[in-house]
Amino acid sequence: MKFVVIGGDAAGMSAASRARRLYPDLEITVLEQGFDVSYSACSMPYNIADPDTPMDDLVVRTAEEFIDKHGINLLTGHRATAIDPEAKQVTARNLDGELKTFDYNKLLIATGAVPTLPDLPGKERLMPLKQLAHGRRIKEVIQQNKVRKAVILGMGYIALEMCEALSELGIQVAMVKPGPRLLPWLPEKMAKTVQEELIRKKALLYTGTEIQRIEPDGTGSTILCDGLTLDADLAIGATGVAPCSDLARDAGLVLGVADAIQVDSYLRTSDPDIFAAGDCSDAIHVVTGEPVWIPLALRANRAGWAVADNLFADRNALKGVAGTAVFKVFDLTVVRTGLTLSEAQKVGFDPVENQITSLSRARWQPGAANIDINMVGDRQTGRLLGAQAIGKDGVAHRINAVAVALHAHMTVADFLQTDLAYAPPFSPTWDPMLTAAIQLAKKL
Amino acid sequence: MKFVVIGGDAAGMSAASRARRLYPDLEITVLEQGFDVSYSACSMPYNIADPDTPMDDLVVRTAEEFIDKHGINLLTGHRATAIDPEAKQVTARNLDGELKTFDYNKLLIATGAVPTLPDLPGKERLMPLKQLAHGRRIKEVIQQNKVRKAVILGMGYIALEMCEALSELGIQVAMVKPGPRLLPWLPEKMAKTVQEELIRKKALLYTGTEIQRIEPDGTGSTILCDGLTLDADLAIGATGVAPCSDLARDAGLVLGVADAIQVDSYLRTSDPDIFAAGDCSDAIHVVTGEPVWIPLALRANRAGWAVADNLFADRNALKGVAGTAVFKVFDLTVVRTGLTLSEAQKVGFDPVENQITSLSRARWQPGAANIDINMVGDRQTGRLLGAQAIGKDGVAHRINAVAVALHAHMTVADFLQTDLAYAPPFSPTWDPMLTAAIQLAKKL
Repeated sequence: MKFVVIGGDAAGMSAASRARRLYPDLEITVLEQGFDVSYSACSMPYNIADPDTPMDDLVVRTAEEFIDKHGINLLTGHRATAIDPEAKQVTARNLDGELKTFDYNKLLIATGAVPTLPDLPGKERLMPLKQLAHGRRIKEVIQQNKVRKAVILGMGYIALEMCEALSELGIQVAMVKPGPRLLPWLPEKMAKTVQEELIRKKALLYTGTEIQRIEPDGTGSTILCDGLTLDADLAIGATGVAPCSDLARDAGLVLGVADAIQVDSYLRTSDPDIFAAGDCSDAIHVVTGEPVWIPLALRANRAGWAVADNLFADRNALKGVAGTAVFKVFDLTVVRTGLTLSEAQKVGFDPVENQITSLSRARWQPGAANIDINMVGDRQTGRLLGAQAIGKDGVAHRINAVAVALHAHMTVADFLQTDLAYAPPFSPTWDPMLTAAIQLAKKL
Repeated sequence: MKFVVIGGDAAGMSAASRARRLYPDLEITVLEQGFDVSYSACSMPYNIADPDTPMDDLVVRTAEEFIDKHGINLLTGHRATAIDPEAKQVTARNLDGELKTFDYNKLLIATGAVPTLPDLPGKERLMPLKQLAHGRRIKEVIQQNKVRKAVILGMGYIALEMCEALSELGIQVAMVKPGPRLLPWLPEKMAKTVQEELIRKKALLYTGTEIQRIEPDGTGSTILCDGLTLDADLAIGATGVAPCSDLARDAGLVLGVADAIQVDSYLRTSDPDIFAAGDCSDAIHVVTGEPVWIPLALRANRAGWAVADNLFADRNALKGVAGTAVFKVFDLTVVRTGLTLSEAQKVGFDPVENQITSLSRARWQPGAANIDINMVGDRQTGRLLGAQAIGKDGVAHRINAVAVALHAHMTVADFLQTDLAYAPPFSPTWDPMLTAAIQLAKKL
């Protein structure tokens, strides 16, 4: 039996590794267009901030390890160009331009996502940060060109993490976006706190600023915006990603939300012998029960793993995602899980939100700091729908309690009854998430 | 209508305050034998470690505030001596020895718990730490007697917090207990890690050591044990607490597990006009569905609050406790929720446990440290039953995700599917609690 995997990143290599463990005799071929497999993409901004640690330290396992130790036929430099579901064949082009075909019994499409750069004159001057090769290139430019000024297009979490990384290197960072405000999914007051943190750390923020074009300027670029011209020794494009689903679409597979490949809970596409996993595919949202496209690393790993389980029998049905995310912006931590008020409105809930501020620890404890929490519930059913929070202490893992409650379809009244840990060095008697739930319950 | 509360600590004052808000015309009388109400008892060890902050800083609200601002007839120095459920009267003795009677329509018993000191000759020389008065006394002794050596009887969480507090003051601490090992509810390897941390911080640990008697020695004490004599400028008794339920028993109310006052989910005792809340009363365990006595601060606050809701109608049914707890032992954090293996066996589950070690953050991140987790599940139903964990980074709030899962009666397979937050500064891709669940699931 032959298992072919297109894409050797988190989902693809999780699937290949686990398939090897489950089926020692399976012929496993992975087609990877680049040369890096199994690395921590999310760690790249932190590595960029640290000139002494090579980017290659983020490699978890090398291609050689998969080939030699795990007996996986991992072909780097092979770009899949077509899938023929009738013939059960994948065609790929190698670096020499040769086309090869690969027969499969089961196929996994794990092609990930690509950065979506705005369609501007000079956009090729923008450096994205998605693959390890991108990270290496940014790091090289910083070192070789003695970068003093950087411009980041976009203000999402990768943009913000890069802002922090570059600032730590003493680089002056300007961030630009056409949209009216930073982190529009955060309540305005909370987004303002993030903005203030960025400004305190000397970042320049240009929201509501249309970018016209990017022009070369020595080794750097000039970013021409409406009423604003920015010089950049380094110009980074972090304006979002889109699922790599062209191959699947061309093979006649059904695409769903955001043009991601539609999969069922077993990660099967509309062709029963073709699976899709990772950033190229969709998932069910545990709150709405509807498909969503939220490309995050845990889901990619989990889905890859589940594909191996489900190759020859329906063994591992994934329940879906809550959209739980955390990121760091200098001293602030920003978290979210589930739906925002406007997302909840869009899918037909009758949502109510409420914001509270609570201390992270007992007030006599050193390190106690404010946590701002916005919690969202449904007026009709009382269900807990989501939460967003920011703060400088004890924020990251607190969102997980809410995430588990969303998986369990708890009401706000259920959640506020949960027995959460208390000791003065770690929490007030009522955990901030409980305080948020108590106050929200009053509005429901 | 008259509402009388016996005991002015967390549960009693929560109930009185909320009752005032709900029922502006209610006559509320609180009988408190001491003089402190509404203070952070759990913060006392941290305050003791800090000579510059008076113990009185832990007072959240003074008696005067409750009397003047909230119109609560708060009588400190009044010790309730009897309840007459037929006549609906409470008798209390004030400091002058006068007996007074108080009529009630609704009564709350919130008498808390008392330290249980071992029945040894000289036990009156042991100083407990339960009330603010205890904290003040310990702090006075430390300052006045220039304490250099302390002995703590017991090795539970208060004993451990006191060990840390006294060590930070430069006091040599010895801890003694007759039982064979530290924290017997932790798996042996994890308890050993806690023990090593204590030894690294120069604490002396004498497990398996019977204490014979305590003798005076100047302003200090000599603790005579089997084969061991310990000098103590300060001798602390932290060998556990017992519910103060004598008053309830004498009034004919039903006591339950551990002689705590038995209450239903509305906090009603066996007399429909008498409620009980806080450390004197029991609670339903959300995993077993059976009554337990786990005296913890959050439950006391929550139960007090719920009593006010339920005074005249069944409005707030409490679902119970998971026994979630966290404490700090020097640089280590220790957490638990739900059942241990042996607790699960005792109540009839067919439990399996599994231990894992995971990093707290992505391995490239500064501050990443090992977390040891023991997770317990039921072989028959697959249910998640509990977890214990220790570590130096990112431990405290992680237990809350498991606690919520216990409230939701999740299986281990459900829990391992939850979408928990990931970013390198805060977590590996798979949160340690997920890794624990994945590994436990393999054994189930």
